Amino acid sequence: MLESGENCFEVGSWKLTMEEASRPKEKTMEEAKGFVRRVLLFKFKAETAPDHIEQLIKDHSNLVNLVESLKSWHMGKDVSVKYSNEGFTHVIELTFESTEGIAAYMGHPAHLEMHERIWPHLEKIVVIDYKPTLCN
Amino acid sequence: MLESGENCFEVGSWKLTMEEASRPKEKTMEEAKGFVRRVLLFKFKAETAPDHIEQLIKDHSNLVNLVESLKSWHMGKDVSVKYSNEGFTHVIELTFESTEGIAAYMGHPAHLEMHERIWPHLEKIVVIDYKPTLCN
Repeated sequence: MLESGENCFEVGSWKLTMEEASRPKEKTMEEAKGFVRRVLLFKFKAETAPDHIEQLIKDHSNLVNLVESLKSWHMGKDVSVKYSNEGFTHVIELTFESTEGIAAYMGHPAHLEMHERIWPHLEKIVVIDYKPTLCN
Repeated sequence: MLESGENCFEVGSWKLTMEEASRPKEKTMEEAKGFVRRVLLFKFKAETAPDHIEQLIKDHSNLVNLVESLKSWHMGKDVSVKYSNEGFTHVIELTFESTEGIAAYMGHPAHLEMHERIWPHLEKIVVIDYKPTLCN
């Protein structure tokens, strides 16, 4: 295995292009200040109708319009063909400028309302927050 | 809850800027062709030393230099303060241009070697593939 990792560095935004990412590391580190991502994995209960799931996901996406600290919202349905998806069917990725931004989101009435609506329909969930490092 | 979801669309690359993302939907859909992301959540065994974990992660990041179909590699350590991280400590995000790209990665000798090295150290893992939709 080759030595690796020296070409990894923090990134400030998913807007960052590969060209921008090749700038000196110090500059890129500065850009990275506070950027945090949250990944949610959902497995919905069998009794929740597919069109209800679709509506919940659509409504969840609207949080990006309602919560200022939430900077971007991505979602994808599982297309795994192998390995351990553990039955999760939806991935949601949220991007915040800071951990404070996550705290603001957590306490925002729109999030709290969404949480109350979606929670009873989840068989299981994983939520994990992290500061991404890019290596390309 | 407001109506939502109409402003969601497929994105072709994480390089896409917010300005580019506001182009007409048809253009953006075209860019999205085949783009697939894989998220891995790792929880390492308690007996694996932290510096060994660091080395495994560094070596895993090097796959982006060895496997052509792997277009970007991001990693972050858990910084969750609440909720259900289920004990996972590392998130790795891989981006491929297509599901065929994932298949090529899965069969690549460098991936297979890495898989054999990292697997014995994992207490649990989730791997999920999805085609991201952006809403911002």
